[in-house]
Amino acid sequence: MASIEPFHVVELMERARALEQQGRNIIHMEVGEPDFGTPAPVIQAATQALQRQSLGYTSALGTAALREAISNFYQTRFRANVPPERIIVTSGASAALLIALSLLVSPEDEVLLTDPGYPCNRHFVSLLNGTPICMPLDHTTAYQPTSDHVVKYWSEKTRALLLATPSNPTGTCISPETLNLIAEAVKQRRGNLVVDEIYNVLTYDLPASTILSYRQDAFVINSFSKYWGMTGWRLGWLVVPMGYERDAEKLAQNLFISPPTLAQHAAIACFHEDTLEEMEMRRLEFQKRRDLLIDGLSSLGFGINAKPSGAFYVYANVSGMTQDSYTFSLETLEKTGVAMTPGLDFGAHAPDQHVRFAYTTHYSQIEQALERLFSHLRS
Amino acid sequence: MASIEPFHVVELMERARALEQQGRNIIHMEVGEPDFGTPAPVIQAATQALQRQSLGYTSALGTAALREAISNFYQTRFRANVPPERIIVTSGASAALLIALSLLVSPEDEVLLTDPGYPCNRHFVSLLNGTPICMPLDHTTAYQPTSDHVVKYWSEKTRALLLATPSNPTGTCISPETLNLIAEAVKQRRGNLVVDEIYNVLTYDLPASTILSYRQDAFVINSFSKYWGMTGWRLGWLVVPMGYERDAEKLAQNLFISPPTLAQHAAIACFHEDTLEEMEMRRLEFQKRRDLLIDGLSSLGFGINAKPSGAFYVYANVSGMTQDSYTFSLETLEKTGVAMTPGLDFGAHAPDQHVRFAYTTHYSQIEQALERLFSHLRS
Repeated sequence: MASIEPFHVVELMERARALEQQGRNIIHMEVGEPDFGTPAPVIQAATQALQRQSLGYTSALGTAALREAISNFYQTRFRANVPPERIIVTSGASAALLIALSLLVSPEDEVLLTDPGYPCNRHFVSLLNGTPICMPLDHTTAYQPTSDHVVKYWSEKTRALLLATPSNPTGTCISPETLNLIAEAVKQRRGNLVVDEIYNVLTYDLPASTILSYRQDAFVINSFSKYWGMTGWRLGWLVVPMGYERDAEKLAQNLFISPPTLAQHAAIACFHEDTLEEMEMRRLEFQKRRDLLIDGLSSLGFGINAKPSGAFYVYANVSGMTQDSYTFSLETLEKTGVAMTPGLDFGAHAPDQHVRFAYTTHYSQIEQALERLFSHLRS
Repeated sequence: MASIEPFHVVELMERARALEQQGRNIIHMEVGEPDFGTPAPVIQAATQALQRQSLGYTSALGTAALREAISNFYQTRFRANVPPERIIVTSGASAALLIALSLLVSPEDEVLLTDPGYPCNRHFVSLLNGTPICMPLDHTTAYQPTSDHVVKYWSEKTRALLLATPSNPTGTCISPETLNLIAEAVKQRRGNLVVDEIYNVLTYDLPASTILSYRQDAFVINSFSKYWGMTGWRLGWLVVPMGYERDAEKLAQNLFISPPTLAQHAAIACFHEDTLEEMEMRRLEFQKRRDLLIDGLSSLGFGINAKPSGAFYVYANVSGMTQDSYTFSLETLEKTGVAMTPGLDFGAHAPDQHVRFAYTTHYSQIEQALERLFSHLRS
């Protein structure tokens, strides 16, 4: 327990709430949750399902209808042939990650993770009594690993590599070519690759992609939370390589019984044409916000050395302004009402030099945030 | 992974489905899921929340409103003073169990479990690299542990005892007096007691109770699934002893982010007066079914040596009819269309001699099941 740190952003959010209660206007750019919310067709599907469909346990693997719909989405969107049998619907990406790692990690096994990276990942590894090995990454590789990192950090004890593309907190992507080389390097070492693709449809300069278009030996984690704005529904999925289906089912049965039923009925509507059109509008809106934010922050002296081409985050280097990004975040909040997340929440590699901005708030809010930062930093 | 067995009942359920597709009528008494389903006021609350309330992440601990409502329920129903601060809303009892055990179990720690017992429990312990110690229990103690079992099975490595009252699969309860003695024995050994109370309001000959009425040092697991018929909503809660709130919150944040939001909004209606009246009607109906089933099975030669006074299960001894309850279950299904769960799913102590009947089907169905069993067994 001692090694599990609370999210540092929570303290900042509590301060933000206190300021709001004093009447201050706060612009929230610390929240990793899209502001668009659940799409209307999903709400409608849920409303109907409440009246018409069973709300009891489903199969531990999820409903046949939803697994089929996800399989179809891989086919139509990515030309990836992922049979429903390899898809396990889960209680959010969190549950998908726990199942994947439980399949792979025995005590003292090492798991390679990225630093910066999603803070919970290393705690899942520790929970299973594995050893998280956090690879320090910087802007020279867009904060992403390459096959060189696999060569450098793989040991006799290493069992798996977990990465995310696009990444939280950096928003950067790994190209299919590089990812394939990474996967080869992992395979040569008889390890397993786990790819977190929860932002994979949310890319800007690059086409959306999945490793499943060109490899079938990776574990792939995805979610309805981010692209479809369904965070509170706790629904995600895991794709396992052939041969792992049975063990994954046993784990899903024992650890979770089944994923949430109403959410499964509702999520079918995520793949309807009108919903996907709406999601594409949202993606374009995110792109506009990102462009505004990158330009604005850059002109203010924030270092953005690796262009964030996915998700809804900008990971900015603040070493030109402070030696302590945590204090900087709190002070900036206090002075400007702009909330951001300090690097501390994403790892131990140069966290003092970085902050994360989430562009999960309206374009006009981001404009205002930039104006406030300008006044504050240039004063 | 090798030690995790799939649920044996799944094979039986698949056979039942195949028979149904052939046109056979199957009476399902193998299902640990109440047939009553989600109460109408909860459906209504969910329908309204879909339109009116935020569906994003909540606090990792659950909404303030639901934690307050659960706290009030403890007060009004049980005269138990459980402040909201000690209540963590979870994604079903499964998540509550994972958080509780993660707080307590380090590698090689032993956890005492009951045999027979809920099959997933030992796998949670194994996942955390603890050692599940299954205590064989028989009808002489109503398949429940006593403080003598604590004395007998506690070792230097033992960290916790997990028990359930009422129990699945036996439906038997532990009296408050005995439970208090157990808790004292555990406390003397500086261990922790985890009490699964997911059926605690569903008792018949005895008043419903909670250990929280007389002790504040136990971890208590509960759920909306069973009493309120909300299995597919995946919503439960954990009560932690004072001092564990912060660590439990960190775990909840990291492992689950937050419990399902719509379910939390809807579950508030569980505590409305009309819902609780409806639940009391259901409880009385369960009681009628239980009485019918116990009488019928007893007259057919099933051994029911410990009266099931809670939950919706009868754990029957079939050693007068077979030496292999698994084959017996399959054959009985084949011959009569009555599905039950073989003892194998609940442990290693005399599973061949036991089967579990769930009275989660209509009274008239149970009557018919008993008639069919009579024809088959007496022919």
